[in-house]
Amino acid sequence: MERGYNFSAGPSMMPLEVLEQAQRDLLCYPGAGCSVMEMSHRTPAFEAIIGEAEAALRRVMRIPEDYAVLFMQGGATTQFSCVAMNLAARGDTMDYAVTGQFAGKAMEEGARWGNAVAVTSSKAEKFTHIPAITPDLLDAGAAFVHITGNNTIFGTAYRAAPPHGDVPLVADWSSAILGREIDVRDYDLIYAGAQKNLGPAGLAVVILRRALLDREIDPVVPIMLRYKVAADNGSMYNTPPTWSIYIAKLMFEWVERQGGVAAMQAQNEKKSALLYDAIDSSALFRNPVRRADRSIMNVTFTLPTQAETDAFLSMAKGRGLINLKGHRIAGGCRASLYNGMPLAGVEALVRCMRDFEKGERA
Amino acid sequence: MERGYNFSAGPSMMPLEVLEQAQRDLLCYPGAGCSVMEMSHRTPAFEAIIGEAEAALRRVMRIPEDYAVLFMQGGATTQFSCVAMNLAARGDTMDYAVTGQFAGKAMEEGARWGNAVAVTSSKAEKFTHIPAITPDLLDAGAAFVHITGNNTIFGTAYRAAPPHGDVPLVADWSSAILGREIDVRDYDLIYAGAQKNLGPAGLAVVILRRALLDREIDPVVPIMLRYKVAADNGSMYNTPPTWSIYIAKLMFEWVERQGGVAAMQAQNEKKSALLYDAIDSSALFRNPVRRADRSIMNVTFTLPTQAETDAFLSMAKGRGLINLKGHRIAGGCRASLYNGMPLAGVEALVRCMRDFEKGERA
Repeated sequence: MERGYNFSAGPSMMPLEVLEQAQRDLLCYPGAGCSVMEMSHRTPAFEAIIGEAEAALRRVMRIPEDYAVLFMQGGATTQFSCVAMNLAARGDTMDYAVTGQFAGKAMEEGARWGNAVAVTSSKAEKFTHIPAITPDLLDAGAAFVHITGNNTIFGTAYRAAPPHGDVPLVADWSSAILGREIDVRDYDLIYAGAQKNLGPAGLAVVILRRALLDREIDPVVPIMLRYKVAADNGSMYNTPPTWSIYIAKLMFEWVERQGGVAAMQAQNEKKSALLYDAIDSSALFRNPVRRADRSIMNVTFTLPTQAETDAFLSMAKGRGLINLKGHRIAGGCRASLYNGMPLAGVEALVRCMRDFEKGERA
Repeated sequence: MERGYNFSAGPSMMPLEVLEQAQRDLLCYPGAGCSVMEMSHRTPAFEAIIGEAEAALRRVMRIPEDYAVLFMQGGATTQFSCVAMNLAARGDTMDYAVTGQFAGKAMEEGARWGNAVAVTSSKAEKFTHIPAITPDLLDAGAAFVHITGNNTIFGTAYRAAPPHGDVPLVADWSSAILGREIDVRDYDLIYAGAQKNLGPAGLAVVILRRALLDREIDPVVPIMLRYKVAADNGSMYNTPPTWSIYIAKLMFEWVERQGGVAAMQAQNEKKSALLYDAIDSSALFRNPVRRADRSIMNVTFTLPTQAETDAFLSMAKGRGLINLKGHRIAGGCRASLYNGMPLAGVEALVRCMRDFEKGERA
């Protein structure tokens, strides 16, 4: 089986150029005498890799100097805990906008620590839209308000950072970071699991105002979940996930070579518009999301019956269009169009959809 | 610069055969249509990888069925917290044997959660030996007694699991797991960071009696630090570090092909004996560790002056013997002889030491 077009929601398709570079240097990283996987994190070679990774991310996201960049482990789910434990005292109120499965899980982790409040939710509408946040919804004394910028499972996204008054704004941008422009200054803290646009699973990136590092932290918080410890140790309090950071560096540099995040966004808008147009002009495929709230990274669509869904997925797979099955809690189909997915992949998917609608089954 | 002999304490040298296999399949894993780095963890291909990883580890370590095997993130340092938070209630007494830097750090994390007690310590002797543990040293009501099986920085190790009465025994075996035989039944819980004998950094393996999973856990414990959540979800509550697990699988299978852990131990004893003999028969090099407590994985040695140490490290590096510098808190030199280090590497090191002693400097 050759490389297909991989529409997985994460881990997800990466640029061939990045994979080829990793493959070429896998046995021996230039000048190091060993593979990156074998490289001590306390060597100049790895210090250069992690330094270049941070520098490249700062360039492509235009991260201001008063924000720290941290590389951590445990994915976005560990960040659900870190955000509460680092930004809130025990019992503090934390506001959450519940726009999907992961938004709800973030709130559940907050509730272990303090008073987690759902200030708005689209659960009753099966998460098919992004409810507006206005400052009057928020508790003026809340430690933060938390949003999930892009909802991977339901294919919705915020167009812009919501107004949040004086309450610090925290965003999980796992599934859209580097895929669209995000003005870091609109947020107090952004975090993202890597396995969509940043690199392989096992790495999370946290970008936060340095001023937030000065808060006093409850002694019970594990040392590996402390932002200040990560910041003070250059993300190397203990051995970091060195290979994942190396691949992330290659990804950041690749984004830069493509023209940066603006170019990525333009391409992702083009890919998603092509797919949404195909869905909207079809009598068979359907997308349930309110148009203004559609994600450009994750496009969900349904067919009338499970039998047709299965037949379509099977036909797509036969054409090398893989991992199009929707998340188990949403059903249907989902095409994730992260940076690594070329336009040709989306064109092949649209062709497959049209052919299926015309009655072809292979 | 070609591949050298890499004596790093971790991340560390891996078998060339494993790296070559990873390199060959990097762009497209057989049958999957994508790289392992791009593979959804919810696909049959990855479920097979993680299943085979666990099965291979169970075979090579002879892990009984009443022990669970977990793949987690955050390294051994996160396990310092997990052990306390999962096995002890807030305020419970936990006994620690302080035999090195990481043993001390494990205790510090325990102290965030409860009453962490140093039942014995070799700190006053600069961690140059392993103090005996006897059941009378332990608090009969302690949640566990924690040992660091092999002390990476100081080059010491337990010969066998210490007597521990009815107090559960927890061991950090990060730097010797799969490098010497460990009878899992001697322990209630074993954990290990991967970056020595198991694979790349970013992965930790936990092996624990399933009965320990039934304890009630304090609600404040983050979901990603809960053993039961990891166990109930096949180590995939969230996206696991897929690439690291894949490489670990290749490592486990490689160990099995070499003849298993017994063969690894025999080889590591041979390598370390060669090096210790060279040190002991030298007038220049010295190892400060009590002989009975010497590690077969990490061999520390000193030269009389810093200038001679620097000259030796420089000469060794010129011969492709890299990362021999001792840990910053111990100084001197350290050769880590994990499974990936071939006998030829140790022979080259011993030759370099003899040549240095004879006055050669290149």
